[in-house]
Amino acid sequence: MNRNLQPTMKDVAREAGVALGTVSRVFNGYPVGEEYRERVEAAAEKLNYRINNYARGLKTNKTFCIGLLMPSLRHPFFAALIDELTAALMHRGYLTNVMITNFDPGAELKCFNLIEQNKVDGIIALTYRPDLVVESAVPVVTIDRQFHPAIPCVSSDNFRGGQMAAEKLLELGCRKLLFLRIGPEIQSEADRRGPGFEDVCRRTGTAYDSLLVNDEETEAPVYQFLSRHLQDGHLDFDGIFCNTDGLARRVMEFLERNGVRVPDEVQIIGYDGIIDFATGCYVCSTIVQPLRQMAEAAVNLLLSSETPAGEAVLRLPVTYVPGGTTRDGPAAVGDSGVYNPFHTEFR
Amino acid sequence: MNRNLQPTMKDVAREAGVALGTVSRVFNGYPVGEEYRERVEAAAEKLNYRINNYARGLKTNKTFCIGLLMPSLRHPFFAALIDELTAALMHRGYLTNVMITNFDPGAELKCFNLIEQNKVDGIIALTYRPDLVVESAVPVVTIDRQFHPAIPCVSSDNFRGGQMAAEKLLELGCRKLLFLRIGPEIQSEADRRGPGFEDVCRRTGTAYDSLLVNDEETEAPVYQFLSRHLQDGHLDFDGIFCNTDGLARRVMEFLERNGVRVPDEVQIIGYDGIIDFATGCYVCSTIVQPLRQMAEAAVNLLLSSETPAGEAVLRLPVTYVPGGTTRDGPAAVGDSGVYNPFHTEFR
Repeated sequence: MNRNLQPTMKDVAREAGVALGTVSRVFNGYPVGEEYRERVEAAAEKLNYRINNYARGLKTNKTFCIGLLMPSLRHPFFAALIDELTAALMHRGYLTNVMITNFDPGAELKCFNLIEQNKVDGIIALTYRPDLVVESAVPVVTIDRQFHPAIPCVSSDNFRGGQMAAEKLLELGCRKLLFLRIGPEIQSEADRRGPGFEDVCRRTGTAYDSLLVNDEETEAPVYQFLSRHLQDGHLDFDGIFCNTDGLARRVMEFLERNGVRVPDEVQIIGYDGIIDFATGCYVCSTIVQPLRQMAEAAVNLLLSSETPAGEAVLRLPVTYVPGGTTRDGPAAVGDSGVYNPFHTEFR
Repeated sequence: MNRNLQPTMKDVAREAGVALGTVSRVFNGYPVGEEYRERVEAAAEKLNYRINNYARGLKTNKTFCIGLLMPSLRHPFFAALIDELTAALMHRGYLTNVMITNFDPGAELKCFNLIEQNKVDGIIALTYRPDLVVESAVPVVTIDRQFHPAIPCVSSDNFRGGQMAAEKLLELGCRKLLFLRIGPEIQSEADRRGPGFEDVCRRTGTAYDSLLVNDEETEAPVYQFLSRHLQDGHLDFDGIFCNTDGLARRVMEFLERNGVRVPDEVQIIGYDGIIDFATGCYVCSTIVQPLRQMAEAAVNLLLSSETPAGEAVLRLPVTYVPGGTTRDGPAAVGDSGVYNPFHTEFR
């Protein structure tokens, strides 16, 4: 090691047994073989080499910060998504500037400006403002909602998820299906859940109905619709697909309050894959979004200079899991590592 | 406005009708009257004035970023805490670098180094590594666990919360009380919940028992203890205080599986104030931590240059709310703005 107290990149290269250029590539976030990255990282850790990112920013004009623009941290879907994105970025040596907009388009614009002022290297955004991100000067990847053909978007395969929900309900003996959707008017990839569901119903000649509510204030139309189809504790449908797990839970509680047993009389499937914080089980039978894969894909798209070919929407495969609201067994334990008494509860 | 395309601070001062120094104070994050801050912010927005924080960092040696070191994003308590901290920081013009450690002390150290390399202006940490933060060169405020008398710590008033739980159970007719605690061995402010509970039991001459489990892997000792006190569907206790809402939920499910009705036969109070994502109601009767006040206090302590006098642990007042596991009514709706069909569910 040289005589300075601080080890240099050369010291790290010697310790790792790699070329200086390889160390530079790793420290500057450029692609390099995983084995080389690990050797360089191990050597840097051993020598206690500290990158001065602030000085590095001056030299390379990179900040090694990515801005994350997300609508909420209170909903477990967004919290889990931010968790995966933060982990994927940290693995690549990037810090994450998390900005929460609380679904407020004004706040989204303010956050966007704030992020740009701080010269992040890129932005991953799940926004409710369709005109927002296309003006940005830094690379952007969106989640669930594409704004422009040139801006890559990552989502789960919502159409296939809708198909899977219908197929599963039919497999479990349902004969009269219902799709319930409530959400904002602004278009998103999530809008494909219903068409996927209806596609299977039509192709199999299954009787079905759909209720799509564009309402930002109340779910009353959903309960009014269900009440109209309720008679003497019997519902006209025996299988329901809800566009989110949250709606599925509320529909379940509504039906049970009205004497309809779930899953004995009516089976319900939601969408998202929300895991209960206390039990570690899925909160309902559900189509699980592959959050880890979505986060990895979003980060890879953002950090690579290449734009994907074609439509630039990456739709990643979903899975179905039972969660107690269908007749295929009790709620499954989540495999996302959420439930572990130590990891979830000990403070 | 001057002839440059970019407005200057002088333009903002003129527009806001304040002195240039006031604009400078606002942009540099120094204390200023709320009315002045609002006028400056409105003027800056109107003129589309953009602070170049990167250049500003060079001049003032400030980054206007705060590092947040948190153990988890998957647990709703931590997610809500991070949400409040991020909002409090953004309100003051600071970005938040969120680092999630997943309870791994190695990851905590790595995050700490990463944060320091990026020269954040301060760190707010909830860590599980008692030797970690005292070495830091930047200002630090901790949550729930104090490492050093010179490092301010913010928590809820855990002792008073324990007292409130006992008082409420007695008020609701319980006569034989139980305190259940499971958690890691490392000390924290949360350890005061049990002593607060026992204090009331002793002072009122109430029969009580306590089970404190230091275990990081399993909650089995809790269920073994309960099983020993269960006979023919009757539990030896009629009021239980659990050290977290998660434990309260699991104890409730365990008792109901064993034929003990909650809250008819046994009443349970948890701690934290977790709100169910689907219904917007508290998941159990609980002592609610004042997350917004805790976040504001932590941010104020961090950004002010003054160290608080005395022990430097700020313990903020808690409240009790019914949540369906006590006989004082059904689950209350949370007031944290979590449940709103649009805000929680629409994607």
